[in-house]
Amino acid sequence: MRPAHLLLVAALFWTPTAWGGLPENASGVGEHAAHWQPDPLHEYWDPGTYHRPESEAVEGVFQGEACLECHAGVTPGLVKDWRASRHAQVEPPVLCPACHGDDHQKLTFPTPQTCGTCHPQRLAQVEEEKQYGFPSHALAMERVVDAKHFADKPKAEVASCLQCHSVATKCDSCHTRHRFDPAEARRPEACLTCHSGPPHPDDEAYFASAHGRKYQKEGALWDWSKPLRKGNYATPTCAYCHMKDGNHQVADKAVWKFGIREINPTTAENEIKRKRWRETCADCHPPEVAPEFFRALDQERATAWGKLNTVERLLKSLRGDGLLRPSARERPPYPMDWMARLFPRERIGFFEGQASAFYNVGALERDYFEMWYFDNLGAYKGMAHGAGEMSQRFHQRMDAAAQSLGAAAERLRSKGGETSGIDWKPLWLEGEYTRFNRDHN
Amino acid sequence: MRPAHLLLVAALFWTPTAWGGLPENASGVGEHAAHWQPDPLHEYWDPGTYHRPESEAVEGVFQGEACLECHAGVTPGLVKDWRASRHAQVEPPVLCPACHGDDHQKLTFPTPQTCGTCHPQRLAQVEEEKQYGFPSHALAMERVVDAKHFADKPKAEVASCLQCHSVATKCDSCHTRHRFDPAEARRPEACLTCHSGPPHPDDEAYFASAHGRKYQKEGALWDWSKPLRKGNYATPTCAYCHMKDGNHQVADKAVWKFGIREINPTTAENEIKRKRWRETCADCHPPEVAPEFFRALDQERATAWGKLNTVERLLKSLRGDGLLRPSARERPPYPMDWMARLFPRERIGFFEGQASAFYNVGALERDYFEMWYFDNLGAYKGMAHGAGEMSQRFHQRMDAAAQSLGAAAERLRSKGGETSGIDWKPLWLEGEYTRFNRDHN
Amino acid sequence: MRPAHLLLVAALFWTPTAWGGLPENASGVGEHAAHWQPDPLHEYWDPGTYHRPESEAVEGVFQGEACLECHAGVTPGLVKDWRASRHAQVEPPVLCPACHGDDHQKLTFPTPQTCGTCHPQRLAQVEEEKQYGFPSHALAMERVVDAKHFADKPKAEVASCLQCHSVATKCDSCHTRHRFDPAEARRPEACLTCHSGPPHPDDEAYFASAHGRKYQKEGALWDWSKPLRKGNYATPTCAYCHMKDGNHQVADKAVWKFGIREINPTTAENEIKRKRWRETCADCHPPEVAPEFFRALDQERATAWGKLNTVERLLKSLRGDGLLRPSARERPPYPMDWMARLFPRERIGFFEGQASAFYNVGALERDYFEMWYFDNLGAYKGMAHGAGEMSQRFHQRMDAAAQSLGAAAERLRSKGGETSGIDWKPLWLEGEYTRFNRDHN
Repeated sequence: MRPAHLLLVAALFWTPTAWGGLPENASGVGEHAAHWQPDPLHEYWDPGTYHRPESEAVEGVFQGEACLECHAGVTPGLVKDWRASRHAQVEPPVLCPACHGDDHQKLTFPTPQTCGTCHPQRLAQVEEEKQYGFPSHALAMERVVDAKHFADKPKAEVASCLQCHSVATKCDSCHTRHRFDPAEARRPEACLTCHSGPPHPDDEAYFASAHGRKYQKEGALWDWSKPLRKGNYATPTCAYCHMKDGNHQVADKAVWKFGIREINPTTAENEIKRKRWRETCADCHPPEVAPEFFRALDQERATAWGKLNTVERLLKSLRGDGLLRPSARERPPYPMDWMARLFPRERIGFFEGQASAFYNVGALERDYFEMWYFDNLGAYKGMAHGAGEMSQRFHQRMDAAAQSLGAAAERLRSKGGETSGIDWKPLWLEGEYTRFNRDHN
Repeated sequence: MRPAHLLLVAALFWTPTAWGGLPENASGVGEHAAHWQPDPLHEYWDPGTYHRPESEAVEGVFQGEACLECHAGVTPGLVKDWRASRHAQVEPPVLCPACHGDDHQKLTFPTPQTCGTCHPQRLAQVEEEKQYGFPSHALAMERVVDAKHFADKPKAEVASCLQCHSVATKCDSCHTRHRFDPAEARRPEACLTCHSGPPHPDDEAYFASAHGRKYQKEGALWDWSKPLRKGNYATPTCAYCHMKDGNHQVADKAVWKFGIREINPTTAENEIKRKRWRETCADCHPPEVAPEFFRALDQERATAWGKLNTVERLLKSLRGDGLLRPSARERPPYPMDWMARLFPRERIGFFEGQASAFYNVGALERDYFEMWYFDNLGAYKGMAHGAGEMSQRFHQRMDAAAQSLGAAAERLRSKGGETSGIDWKPLWLEGEYTRFNRDHN
Repeated sequence: MRPAHLLLVAALFWTPTAWGGLPENASGVGEHAAHWQPDPLHEYWDPGTYHRPESEAVEGVFQGEACLECHAGVTPGLVKDWRASRHAQVEPPVLCPACHGDDHQKLTFPTPQTCGTCHPQRLAQVEEEKQYGFPSHALAMERVVDAKHFADKPKAEVASCLQCHSVATKCDSCHTRHRFDPAEARRPEACLTCHSGPPHPDDEAYFASAHGRKYQKEGALWDWSKPLRKGNYATPTCAYCHMKDGNHQVADKAVWKFGIREINPTTAENEIKRKRWRETCADCHPPEVAPEFFRALDQERATAWGKLNTVERLLKSLRGDGLLRPSARERPPYPMDWMARLFPRERIGFFEGQASAFYNVGALERDYFEMWYFDNLGAYKGMAHGAGEMSQRFHQRMDAAAQSLGAAAERLRSKGGETSGIDWKPLWLEGEYTRFNRDHN
């Protein structure tokens, strides 16, 4: 691993200059704050916490018109966008200093609280989500920057995660600056910028559905200034169903919890949520249709969790017999986890708490992680959005993973843990991630 | 597998309520009818056979205007769509009862035959496809619900298959209700709602081609009310080539049979079909271009089948030597297949007839299935639609599968069938699919 | 492998008719010309070198108006496109013979030089790229048809490669004939027709980014006749950043060299290129933002090359110990490579020079190839275009490949090269590719 380390040494060499706007001793926030440092890009993803104004060449205090005059030359696109926005059309207009301050040496980036000054109802709706727990937009950042396993992740990966989880800490994830047009945020792509990729393939699911195909055919010419109400759109988009009537609280119909957790679909709470779904579907479909689709989804989920639980039990039994390596002792503990240092505890699966283990585990645990986080979520998202083929495809992947893990377990047992034939050795156990993070998080 | 079973018990518990519109003793159709039951969702995918009207709160007999008046409040979107349709503009208009009946307690969903009352030529074109066999739109449902291996498939998967195969049993797969606009059905996405995913990645192929990219760039602003005739469109879409002049018979140019079967490209029949293709291509390209592309496609197919046949021969030889497990005896037979119960017969590959084996086989057979059904079809679809990179990518996957299967075969032989190192154990042999289907199909 | 060969015999049987416009003894060009023959499709991808006019039924010499009159019936689409083009609107119009000649028996296809007659600045910009070496548009064809490993590739694959690499030999890769509209070439899809697929997933990267999503939402209605200048577009497209102000020289900001090569990001030359990037980003973003993203990209690249170098070193060490098979002696040399015949030399990796080895190698080398060419490039393209999730996904694939290759290496060593358990046997060593190419390239 020498060359990798040489490269990392080079990477470290750049580090001093890498702390652009952030002071070098910037520290993290929350319970585990002492154990990690923010990434330089944090200041853009979580400006309320991390943004530090640059000391730029331009000095002075400016009111809006002076800003616009100069920026029409420097960054004309954003001035154009602002001029086309409602901010420019109301009287008096919402000028630059309202969001950025007026001292060019101390400019700020707006947070949801900044926007909430004029849009208190929307902010309240977002905040209301917190009662529904995670996953939710409102907790998307907090759970990331202050989750134990994030302190142990490679910095580049954390930066990539934050890019989308910043939906909690700034509003222009959906309402692109500087136009902030609801007409834009109603389009599915506003959501799909983040809702894509293996753990949340909503883009694939939506576009594979009859709903999404209809949008692809005709959406370009629809009048998106219309509110998200019954009869206004020929097919639902993400926001039509998940942000009914423009409600910015997106969690009150979350029956299936993103597909991540096994749920009981028939609790009283879930019955209420299902009723909300039925009403939404009934905007367009006969009321008896939706329940049949929900039942199909419940069955799909039961099948998926049957597969996942079978494999998790298999891995736990291997672990119990000391056959799964690296063991807890062979794996470095979280940097902040002195309990784990003294009493290493074996864990399997995301919810046992050592999620960072997925970066420092043998092939069997990683394959199970991918089965759970990628294949299972693809199966769920497909079924939930009317993309049946997609759901079955991911079920086939789960079957293949389960079969392969079952065979590997059998080989392991038949050899009494002899490693030959089983890819148990984690690449990064003593490699760059582990060492780098141990030193720098 | 206990927890999986507990879950399934839970799933069964829901079953009584799961038979929404369908009576509990609803049975399948066709030769194998006695051996399976329709899924509740069948009534939407195959309404002519399975739809049972709900006993709804609303009673009475309504002519169109009364329907529209009430539904403008209940489901305004569909009323808007209908008002924008040609059905609303002809004199007299085609009102709701024409397709749904007028008794609100006995509403029906229209079938192709319903639509054929006014559109007999289109219906005749669809029916004409049957002479070309499968694959075809006209036989897409029949071959699914009455195919032996479908009786053995997991219900959730069958439901997913039906969603698209219902192209044979209702017209709104392509002409979205209640506007039924040919302008919509001419758009590629009308086809791609179903023609996507591993066994038919036409979406990937089309959008990766120069044809598809041109459509993506400019199609949103084209006038789609124009018929699919020479000179009307700047680039071909699915329907332009496959439904020339709007012909709803889509099978008369099917030289390469979807890539599923090895064909002789130079039969007299195929020469006629190729001539039809040449004429289609010559709408835009010099007449000497198309034959060169056909030759490239023939070569690609020959190469692909060379790979597939090599591997199929390999698996047959393993089977002949008793090295491929589970063997026919180790695998449960089709529920209806008493001959197979008495005289289990070894089979390899889709066309030997035990397609459901792909759900209950060892890793080698499944990998071969995916090589044939996913990789081979990707290679074909890419080449056939001018997406060369895509085709080569799937050829690389076939190479990798062949190499891996070859090495596994060698290990199996060197160990005389000892399983160690080979993933032969099918996950579901005694698992949920097999048992569930054995009991409930 | 018999059936494969029978199929190939059949393929060869078609070959005589396969040389449509090309004489049967047509030979390749360049240093290795004697060792390969062009594919029939070459005449369309590289018309300047390979196009041979057909002897068609139509004889005579025609000026433009006569061409248009007849072709309005034969191929009306292209006449329409031409009439809508600037070529039709200038005075005098640029008529058909300007590009195709006027003798219908000797029609030609235009090359960049043909277009350069009227557009010398654009041609000069394209030619200027050559000083930046490969990858570049200007050298895209030359490096393909005259690269040693292309003479050894399967013909079908070469044809697929040429389809895009023809960007060097004709202008309608981007400016679709016969409209040649800059408004079309400015759209991202003009680039993405080729910039897609595993080794260059720019489509996936762009559409996953906030930039691309904005384009997907609103691009259909933008005024694409505007030049690619600051303030004209609400979000950048490929050409906005890579062809600033319409500059057809696309290589002068190529710091990271497509992700293919490990680069030193801080050379004087790269500092100049980075400055060009910073200026481009500053059209819309505050000037201090871009450098932070570049640093994140530098770190991502360092991490990626750390992984690749680790694995390459591993494979080299296996090779050094004679454990990696097939060895150079077991593998057929390039047809033209008499030195390699006499003195077979072991090589690992693309840049050691035997790229065709990737078609005739064991599973370990192929897996490394895919790690380098597919996963690494996905990781790069994602990070470079603001699609962080995509980048991390490909990093996870690199981790999985590295882990699996590491475990395979360990097994190989523990068995002293005994093959059991390692897929070393290349499928095509004595198979169709090798033999076919040996005989026919």
